[in-house]
Formats: sequence, structure tokens, C-alpha cells
Amino acid sequence: MDEGKAGEGKAGKDKISSGRAIHRLAHSDYRWDGVEELPYKEDDRALFKSITRQVLFSDSALNGELRYFEMAAGGFSTLERHQHMHAVLILRGRGHCLIGHEVKSLETRDLVTVPPLTWHQFRATKGEPMGFLCMVNALRDKPQLPTAEDLARLTHIPAVKEFLDGRCRAD
Amino acid sequence: MDEGKAGEGKAGKDKISSGRAIHRLAHSDYRWDGVEELPYKEDDRALFKSITRQVLFSDSALNGELRYFEMAAGGFSTLERHQHMHAVLILRGRGHCLIGHEVKSLETRDLVTVPPLTWHQFRATKGEPMGFLCMVNALRDKPQLPTAEDLARLTHIPAVKEFLDGRCRAD
Repeated sequence: MDEGKAGEGKAGKDKISSGRAIHRLAHSDYRWDGVEELPYKEDDRALFKSITRQVLFSDSALNGELRYFEMAAGGFSTLERHQHMHAVLILRGRGHCLIGHEVKSLETRDLVTVPPLTWHQFRATKGEPMGFLCMVNALRDKPQLPTAEDLARLTHIPAVKEFLDGRCRAD
Repeated sequence: MDEGKAGEGKAGKDKISSGRAIHRLAHSDYRWDGVEELPYKEDDRALFKSITRQVLFSDSALNGELRYFEMAAGGFSTLERHQHMHAVLILRGRGHCLIGHEVKSLETRDLVTVPPLTWHQFRATKGEPMGFLCMVNALRDKPQLPTAEDLARLTHIPAVKEFLDGRCRAD
């Protein structure tokens, strides 16, 4: 989920602490006053699809960051792994995620963690957008993409192949 | 909001990283499978009222923690300040908060930060519960309570006094 964020948040060097209270009003469409919506560029290799990112909290006084990712119906995040951990709360909609070799069905407000160096991907159902909060360490490593060998190993598992092909039974 | 949590999360020494993916199903009432609901003991001095706490994410691999606090209609959190920062997202309901000398009206999904050493308190409206997510550093200092002098200084400001007395105009 960190694809396309060259350098962002990795070192925290450029971050400043505002030192004053910030109040950002919520819009009805899961956007916020003063929070930039960063669309992922569509990817030729189909690594991800129809996903946007908003950084809700990032401050030099905070050791964590809170981001909001949203996938349109049928959209998905990058299949990746990294040393840092993800702590995810589904804020809207439903879908599935792959974590390691397991496919999990996700409903609104479900909690899910992604342990270090574990392949993961999130997919919205085909019926509606899925949005989730993701807490990470402010200082974190860069995501790794799967090699052809990694992919072969993953798609060898029928349920994982089905998930990666966008054919989850529950959809 | 950290009142009554002697030692919890302060040093992170006792925390372990599970190393495996955790999926906690959400219940309809803003409770989660396997997450303990920690009711604040009701306080004789009326420092807080009708508030519960659930720790959603706390892991030695995470430098932040995510907690969910919920106040019943008319409930409120402890008036306190500390060196560590709060990053808050209103998950359900509406209410008000005091941050420094300012009273803010809060709606579902609003974002608000509490800067270091700033007096703060959250209050649910009288009509419905208000619940919020609060991200903090895993390593953090203990909250301070206001002295009689601090309180006198705060209640000298009419809008603050109104808030502390539970008489917010928008209620």
C-alpha cells in the first residue's frame, strides 16, 4: 500500500509539528477538509487499481501515522510485503484481503494486522467502495514487490489464486 | 484520557508481537471480538463519566497505539494534559471537545489533534453516545490533572466554563 510514495514518511525528516490543535471537518464522502487526496496513478502492470490515499495524521510528535485508503468497487491495493507492520480498521464497505497464504473476508469496522514481511493485498467487493484506516510506524522500510517466483508460489494455492484473479467466492 | 491505566503502554516492555495476522470481527455495537472493554471506574471527584476504553492495536512492532473510547450520552473524558500528542477521529456520534482554551463542535469522522501539554476533554452530546479512535505513541508520559489554579484560569473563560459545566449551546 505504500507504492508510489517515493520517500514519503520514511525518514520523517521533513515533518513538522504544528504545535497547535488541528480540527479537520469530515465531508460526507470520506474526504476531509485540508487533507489532500492522493490518487494512485493507474499501473500498466495492474499492480493496483482504483485506489486513493489520504494521510490523516502525520506529525513529528507522533511515532505513528494514520492513513485512509479507499478502493472503488472492484479496486485493489498493491500486492507487497515489508518489514513494518500494518494495523487496519475497515471504515466503510466490505471486501477481502490476502495476508500470507490466507484470504480473509472483511466487514465494516473489522480489525486486521499484517505482520512483518508478509505478502498482503486488499480488494473491495464488486458492489461498493471499501475504505480502511491503516496505522504504520512513521519510520518504516520500503515495500517489496513479488518476484515471478514469489507469485508462482502464491498462486499455487487455489484460494490465493482465486483472490489474486479477483474471483472471491463471497463477492 | 489515560486516567486509570497505571503503567499501561508507558514503557511497552510487556508487549509482545504476535508475529501472525490477527483478524478481529466487529460487532454491531462498536465492540470487537477478543478486545477487552475496559470501563473507567466511575470517579467520586467527577473527573470523568460514563466512558469506556478498548485497545484496538498495541504491539511491540508498532510505535503507535490505536484505542477506541466511547462515552455514553452526556459522558465525558478526564480533563488532563500530557507531553504526548493525541490524534483523534470521531467514529460515531457527535459532541464537543475542549482543546486549550477552545471549544470545538465535533461530528462523525471529524479529525482533531491535541498538541503537547494542552488541556483537553471530550464530551458526548446528551442525545447519543460518542466514540472516537485515538492514536498515541506507544512510549508516552503520564497525564497531569489540573490544579485548582489551572481550573480557575480555565473557567475564567465563559465558553470554557460552559463546556466544563456540561452546558454546550449546541447540545
